[in-house]
Amino acid sequence: MSVRARQAWESGSEADRPRLSGVLAPVLTPFRSDLSPDAARFVRHCRWLLSQGCAGLAVFGTTSEANSLSVEEREALLGELLGAGIDPGKVLPGTGCCALTDTVRLTHAAVRARCAGVLMLPPFYYKGVSEEGLFRSFAEVIERVGDARLRVYLYHIPPVAQVGFSQKLVERLVTAYPRTVAGMKDSSGDWNNTKAMLDAFASSGFDVFAGSERFLLANLRHGGAGCITATGNVNAAAIDRLFREWRTPRAEQLQEELNAVRGAIEKHPVIPALKAIVANQTGDPAWRAPRPPLVELPGAQAEALLAELRRLGFQMPGLSG
Amino acid sequence: MSVRARQAWESGSEADRPRLSGVLAPVLTPFRSDLSPDAARFVRHCRWLLSQGCAGLAVFGTTSEANSLSVEEREALLGELLGAGIDPGKVLPGTGCCALTDTVRLTHAAVRARCAGVLMLPPFYYKGVSEEGLFRSFAEVIERVGDARLRVYLYHIPPVAQVGFSQKLVERLVTAYPRTVAGMKDSSGDWNNTKAMLDAFASSGFDVFAGSERFLLANLRHGGAGCITATGNVNAAAIDRLFREWRTPRAEQLQEELNAVRGAIEKHPVIPALKAIVANQTGDPAWRAPRPPLVELPGAQAEALLAELRRLGFQMPGLSG
Repeated sequence: MSVRARQAWESGSEADRPRLSGVLAPVLTPFRSDLSPDAARFVRHCRWLLSQGCAGLAVFGTTSEANSLSVEEREALLGELLGAGIDPGKVLPGTGCCALTDTVRLTHAAVRARCAGVLMLPPFYYKGVSEEGLFRSFAEVIERVGDARLRVYLYHIPPVAQVGFSQKLVERLVTAYPRTVAGMKDSSGDWNNTKAMLDAFASSGFDVFAGSERFLLANLRHGGAGCITATGNVNAAAIDRLFREWRTPRAEQLQEELNAVRGAIEKHPVIPALKAIVANQTGDPAWRAPRPPLVELPGAQAEALLAELRRLGFQMPGLSG
Repeated sequence: MSVRARQAWESGSEADRPRLSGVLAPVLTPFRSDLSPDAARFVRHCRWLLSQGCAGLAVFGTTSEANSLSVEEREALLGELLGAGIDPGKVLPGTGCCALTDTVRLTHAAVRARCAGVLMLPPFYYKGVSEEGLFRSFAEVIERVGDARLRVYLYHIPPVAQVGFSQKLVERLVTAYPRTVAGMKDSSGDWNNTKAMLDAFASSGFDVFAGSERFLLANLRHGGAGCITATGNVNAAAIDRLFREWRTPRAEQLQEELNAVRGAIEKHPVIPALKAIVANQTGDPAWRAPRPPLVELPGAQAEALLAELRRLGFQMPGLSG
């Protein structure tokens, strides 16, 4: 870390930047027929998400199939996005890889590009690793990037990554790097875990995002910062409405409506289902394809999903190919 | 695929190369104090392994902490190894990554370098993926590499990768790419699974390697090709002896001796334990360090391990720093 960066870090002069809150979408990654990432469709979708009330773009998350992309492919897509004029202050790239050196490289790039922060998976190949080993992984990345502008959001998604964050690990990280470790996305699907993290850390300014809008109202009522949710890719406006109106008498009803839409989507593999919805709405079937090992939603399943969403009165205003 | 490569593939002219059999070590990766891979120590260890009777070097496996290395770091290490004059016909690099493009890149590099084959993990980030999605992952890699020289060994290690190979998936791959899909390493730890793979595929020339020498004798008795085992890093000569003498009356006794050494090592986290053994034998403490998220074996544990190995009469002839 440079002397100047260290001074800025110590003095906290970077700590006053506005922090993310509200609804973030882990942005779907469109692919061309040769399975290469499609930057043009990606940028259009990002613009639409921001127009719908997304507070930020959690590009390169699980829903983005980020781990199915090489480091170079992620760097190129981020470059295209920011080159298209998207405000980096609204971008929260996923940068946590299995390899320390990859995580450092992507995190460094995000900081240099002045992104709002990074959403960091733990290294997820080895299972049952120690708290000490995970602490060292994050400490190495933070020290190597060595930049007061870095804000790390811990990405807890044990159903997929298998490797997660214990409360003890979060405590060690927050204690060691209070200005850098800024929050968490909890995709455990377990409200008790989210609540425990809120109870332990929210009052000290640690921003907990629910990993699903199912827990948005509960999260906000307990001091959480919002949600980072896959379905934000298609239902951001409605989710943002609950974020803005959670203190009103309508909140419970809005939460129930969100749950109904999410329930319809969750009957299917979520990433292919979301891609099928965007493909239908934009009239652009190219959107349907994921990268292997994921497969596109079969036509009949997509029809059933779209029919159920129509019955729920679901709409995606202003989205076009 | 070029016309010439396609012709070679179709005609099977590449299928007559000698195939790997015997004992392979998933080679430990040494790190410098800055956690960068240490090519000089790596090459020395590889030479020693071959001198001990290893039939091949399964570099960049789980024991190698390969997923803790970037693609560039793996490419550089492979280049150093072959540049040092190691026969590529004895090298079986791990090339399976989460991202299709990374797997293609590493596999292509291995084929260009005339490696014996590649050991390929399935993409392991998403869990519960479909057989179709996994089939497409492997088919895409094989088609994109498009080289008759490619030999793919499927790497089945569900305790770590979580994503594995069903018998149906193996059957689809062997049927679609009979000259390319050459075998499997079964690290399930479940002999019934290994036996099922042997029963289904061994007679058609599919080489099944046990993922542990515990199953070496059983594997050879059922038509298997050998084993690719972590402990090959320290006990290759003894494991190779069982491979050479498995038809003799001594075989059961040799198997029991191997099991005792393995049992001593398995009381500890295996990768740090193996590194502690190599560090002790070479008198080179630099060997002890893994990359995060793994941590080195604590000193007291290392002492206990070494004492137990001494009681078992364990030796590592000719290994020096």
